[in-house]
Amino acid sequence: MAIDEMWLQSSILKKRLTNEIFYVNLEYEDKITIRLRSEICEWLGCQLTGERSEATVVLSVDCKLDVNLEAYEVKENEIIGTSSVGLLYGFYAYLRLKLSGANLSEKSAPAQSLRMINHWDQVDGTIERGYAGESIFFGRFGSNDVKDIGTDIFRNDFTRLKMYARFLASIGINAISLNNVNVRGLGTSLIVSPYIEKVGEIAKLFATFGLKTFLAINWAAPKLIGELKTSDPLDENVYTWWQQTIDHIYEVIPDFGGLVVKADSEGEPGPYQYGRNHADGANMLAKAFEKYNGLVIWRTFVYNSQTDWRNRKNDRAKAAYENFMPLDGDFSDNVILQIKFGPIDFGVREPLMPLFGALKKTNQLMEFQITAEYLGHQIDLNYVLSQWLEMIHFDNYGQPEDTISANSPVATHSGFVAIGNVGMDENWCGNKLAQANFYGFGRMCWNNDLSAAEILQEWLALTFPEVKAEVQKEIYELLIDSNQTYELYNAPLAVGSMMVPHYHYGPSINGYEYDRWGAFHFADRNGLGIDRTTATGTGYASLYAPEVAEIFEDKSKTPDEILLFFHYVEYGHLLHNGKTLIQTIYDQHFEGFERVKSYIKSWKSLKGQVDEATYDNVAERLERQLENARNWRDQVNTYFYRMSGIPDDKGREIYR
Amino acid sequence: MAIDEMWLQSSILKKRLTNEIFYVNLEYEDKITIRLRSEICEWLGCQLTGERSEATVVLSVDCKLDVNLEAYEVKENEIIGTSSVGLLYGFYAYLRLKLSGANLSEKSAPAQSLRMINHWDQVDGTIERGYAGESIFFGRFGSNDVKDIGTDIFRNDFTRLKMYARFLASIGINAISLNNVNVRGLGTSLIVSPYIEKVGEIAKLFATFGLKTFLAINWAAPKLIGELKTSDPLDENVYTWWQQTIDHIYEVIPDFGGLVVKADSEGEPGPYQYGRNHADGANMLAKAFEKYNGLVIWRTFVYNSQTDWRNRKNDRAKAAYENFMPLDGDFSDNVILQIKFGPIDFGVREPLMPLFGALKKTNQLMEFQITAEYLGHQIDLNYVLSQWLEMIHFDNYGQPEDTISANSPVATHSGFVAIGNVGMDENWCGNKLAQANFYGFGRMCWNNDLSAAEILQEWLALTFPEVKAEVQKEIYELLIDSNQTYELYNAPLAVGSMMVPHYHYGPSINGYEYDRWGAFHFADRNGLGIDRTTATGTGYASLYAPEVAEIFEDKSKTPDEILLFFHYVEYGHLLHNGKTLIQTIYDQHFEGFERVKSYIKSWKSLKGQVDEATYDNVAERLERQLENARNWRDQVNTYFYRMSGIPDDKGREIYR
Repeated sequence: MAIDEMWLQSSILKKRLTNEIFYVNLEYEDKITIRLRSEICEWLGCQLTGERSEATVVLSVDCKLDVNLEAYEVKENEIIGTSSVGLLYGFYAYLRLKLSGANLSEKSAPAQSLRMINHWDQVDGTIERGYAGESIFFGRFGSNDVKDIGTDIFRNDFTRLKMYARFLASIGINAISLNNVNVRGLGTSLIVSPYIEKVGEIAKLFATFGLKTFLAINWAAPKLIGELKTSDPLDENVYTWWQQTIDHIYEVIPDFGGLVVKADSEGEPGPYQYGRNHADGANMLAKAFEKYNGLVIWRTFVYNSQTDWRNRKNDRAKAAYENFMPLDGDFSDNVILQIKFGPIDFGVREPLMPLFGALKKTNQLMEFQITAEYLGHQIDLNYVLSQWLEMIHFDNYGQPEDTISANSPVATHSGFVAIGNVGMDENWCGNKLAQANFYGFGRMCWNNDLSAAEILQEWLALTFPEVKAEVQKEIYELLIDSNQTYELYNAPLAVGSMMVPHYHYGPSINGYEYDRWGAFHFADRNGLGIDRTTATGTGYASLYAPEVAEIFEDKSKTPDEILLFFHYVEYGHLLHNGKTLIQTIYDQHFEGFERVKSYIKSWKSLKGQVDEATYDNVAERLERQLENARNWRDQVNTYFYRMSGIPDDKGREIYR
Repeated sequence: MAIDEMWLQSSILKKRLTNEIFYVNLEYEDKITIRLRSEICEWLGCQLTGERSEATVVLSVDCKLDVNLEAYEVKENEIIGTSSVGLLYGFYAYLRLKLSGANLSEKSAPAQSLRMINHWDQVDGTIERGYAGESIFFGRFGSNDVKDIGTDIFRNDFTRLKMYARFLASIGINAISLNNVNVRGLGTSLIVSPYIEKVGEIAKLFATFGLKTFLAINWAAPKLIGELKTSDPLDENVYTWWQQTIDHIYEVIPDFGGLVVKADSEGEPGPYQYGRNHADGANMLAKAFEKYNGLVIWRTFVYNSQTDWRNRKNDRAKAAYENFMPLDGDFSDNVILQIKFGPIDFGVREPLMPLFGALKKTNQLMEFQITAEYLGHQIDLNYVLSQWLEMIHFDNYGQPEDTISANSPVATHSGFVAIGNVGMDENWCGNKLAQANFYGFGRMCWNNDLSAAEILQEWLALTFPEVKAEVQKEIYELLIDSNQTYELYNAPLAVGSMMVPHYHYGPSINGYEYDRWGAFHFADRNGLGIDRTTATGTGYASLYAPEVAEIFEDKSKTPDEILLFFHYVEYGHLLHNGKTLIQTIYDQHFEGFERVKSYIKSWKSLKGQVDEATYDNVAERLERQLENARNWRDQVNTYFYRMSGIPDDKGREIYR
């Protein structure tokens, strides 16, 4: 079977462009404009003329079009970019408009400056939290546990990589990191020869699509591969080693983007080991990057992963705030903090991370997770845009989509980043419909004002351009509330965790309850939930802006859907929805399961209406989702029935 | 550091034998008598004379000594065996008596005919449920997942293997299987060239110590390595393949013992796949072994590992009985059923497997587990003989130690078998004191009448022959109740499970509660326990002899320590001990932890009194045990406090 082209189905696009003749009108050529010509001629096989008069569509660059160098304008017979990359984006926008049958009239500039994808791919070919096959970058020739290996660890499938780069450019992504932030074994050596040269080959291809390539590093690299005795950021030899290493990277990859760093987190090494803080660590690296305009992207996912459940004052949710808020203003201009949208870890439901809006003098990236670690592993349907949009529009001293750049000293050093969800699977994502999330992430970065519904409609129109409108509508209905459906049958009302440890799919209600990861629900015979109030709990609620804190501090004001994240609540407590907590738990879990049953029925009605590969793929996933929803429903309901002793109002079956 | 010699410390033995001159008086020599001469001369470096008149100790064989060919008699100046292997056992008995300072007067024959060790060693060098380093048989050159490999997978450490064979013979073991019963990948090929030849080298060495070598097989071998299309036991080609394979094994290993089979269990293939029963499967193999007097050892650990927790009538405890009781009398004379002592899986506390006493026409082996899978991983102290002896003396239509051979059509095809606990660790067992269990297993097989206390005293006298009696006494006190201590801080009153899934060390109270392994505790806000009565539960209790069933069917008669295995009990229920269930849970868990604290104090008093390696080893283990006991105490107490809402009578700290 051919590899899925995602929304860029060349044969269909070619048909829609049969009557078009393109002319590229440029003063200067560069690698991106050459790529553009190749996209027209070679990829799509369209007519590219040397005579302007013959053309039906003229492509050109006009630096006066917009202040934003990535902007474009598409008209009936014209595509203009502020720069060559703007023009490339304009070309894909033109394809999008053509395919969806919209008016050929769109002037647009990206809302977020940095629009980045992180890969958690590992040199042995596996992907941490990957649910769609092996890595497209690395092959399974090596092992993560070895330090050196004779064989080539790269997959070298440049056909696939080019398809991927095209997809990224087509949704406006402009930066990518290739390897997992947990950098171990041989992965540590990607920044040095002979591996960096191979990274360079990928980076060179990606650059033609306007993509900057980044690598994740192991903080201890100077010790591990540099033969130094320390990785102390204030040690002169450490700095020298990094400067030399970075100099060499730029010899090989002149437009290298920079580094991504997970330090002092979940057992990874970091500056804390040497009594230094994160600004010391990041700024040392940043200095070595200065002359190249390279970036240091520093993750704030730092917490004590040895939390003792016995002490209820411990609160992992507070960790990033406590570690980084005191450093606001201390980071160099080419350092960016990469901050997860929520305070825990991409959960089904979390409030906004309170650092957003609070950090005023620090470059910021808001981090999302496209790969469905906590959202059903691309087995369960889960169109997640509504959740993400809620985060970027959450008001804590202003809404993140505005404050992120406003609070970043260098506004262009800010934006959105997400962990990708693709692998070597034929449809890239394991579940064909999970492509919508990747597509949607790109579109959300570019235009913060699009709604989840608009993005989904757009994606459906592009991905299934030849199916009937009713069929698109049916798939739309399946997906649009699928994130809420998943939430319904998961851990109740944002209490978090309750899933199988490490694997993070399926229920294990006490899986983390007495473990060291700080993810507790505190359920007992009377109620459940985490008290994060200032008066009687961990005080996390007070980290928000006063208007927000006032809501979260007060059980009666906290919205139902986030209630158990902030409060311990008794089973008989009446919620805003007019029902008791226990009845809400039961109702949600029965409803979640029923919804999945209806998805299956709905999907079956589409047999023969969508291509067979997609039909079979989604049908198989839905059966597994039903089993998952059933397990969640029954285990959650039984657990809380055993705890509370309160039967279901409606007398539905809850196993003893 | 030198490898620990266990109880056979050659330098000390040599000292004790300084004045002895040995003379071996034999009509015929064989490989065992040659080994015996080598043990005297080469291993111990003692004097072995050719002149009877010079000797202080005469060794000889007298077939009229006893009806049992393995019997021996030790006198002041004489060691006699009924056969050469009896003489070898007599020699080690002589060493034991010499070392412990006992009277040189012992006539003895083994109580159990087969006294076997199973290894769960895998061809990649790992050991399933091994807690003492890698396999002594296989090295880490291969992988369990591959089918073929060029490199030698054997460790080839014959120095180590000889030490091990000596130890086995010294405690009377006469059979051993080398590889894990879960046979996968390359392990499947151990029965064919070129691997069987390497097995042959080990078997040849072991035979000189009176040990028969066995291998575990994969039931699907004819398909997997024989290129047949089926493994159906009634298929003629399948039989032919097995016959040829077994013929070849005997060419290489003329005294090969036979095969160990785990079929239709926990996902392993078996005759059920072809609509055949276990007798069909076992008898087919048995036929191929007939002319060699080889044995087929067939495990009864067969259960549905896809149990749905929703249906409380499902009961894994009944599975072996239900699968094998109807086949009583159907197995060939050279088939032996290997039956775990309890109905679940070597748990901390289980009742006797009801097949014992009930099976009347089937050769039987009672299976134990020396490796401490459920008993603390050789981290926690756990001298387990008391638990085993309770099993072999449990009366269900007679006591197993008598009924096993009486109910076996071929009495010599019966006995005891255990999973070993040794690996490449310097002290073999990870924990020096865990040697006592291996030693004790051998002694228990030989003499069913020894008490746990006698065996422990004996082991201490032999293992620490040069430390003061008070010190031996102190270690005795540490160990003698250690199994009970472990039980105190584990899952309460035989309810089972509650440990970390798969790993089986440390608490995870709901780890198996909603999983597919049929190991549930059913705790709710009112009580906990499994109702296995006939009236209201699974009916398992009725599988016992009427006098026993009557006790287990009745909550008021069931002993406290096994109560929750048979009954669901409310927290406020008064136990035989005069306390409520919940208070008993609290008390036991506080006490268990306190006992471990006292062990540490006691062990610290021995610093300088035992050798440093042992001191450090046990000290390190005890610290880890304390942490484990603390985790168990706090998680169990908190869990049941949260469930029941009932505080501790004594006001001790239970975390909320």
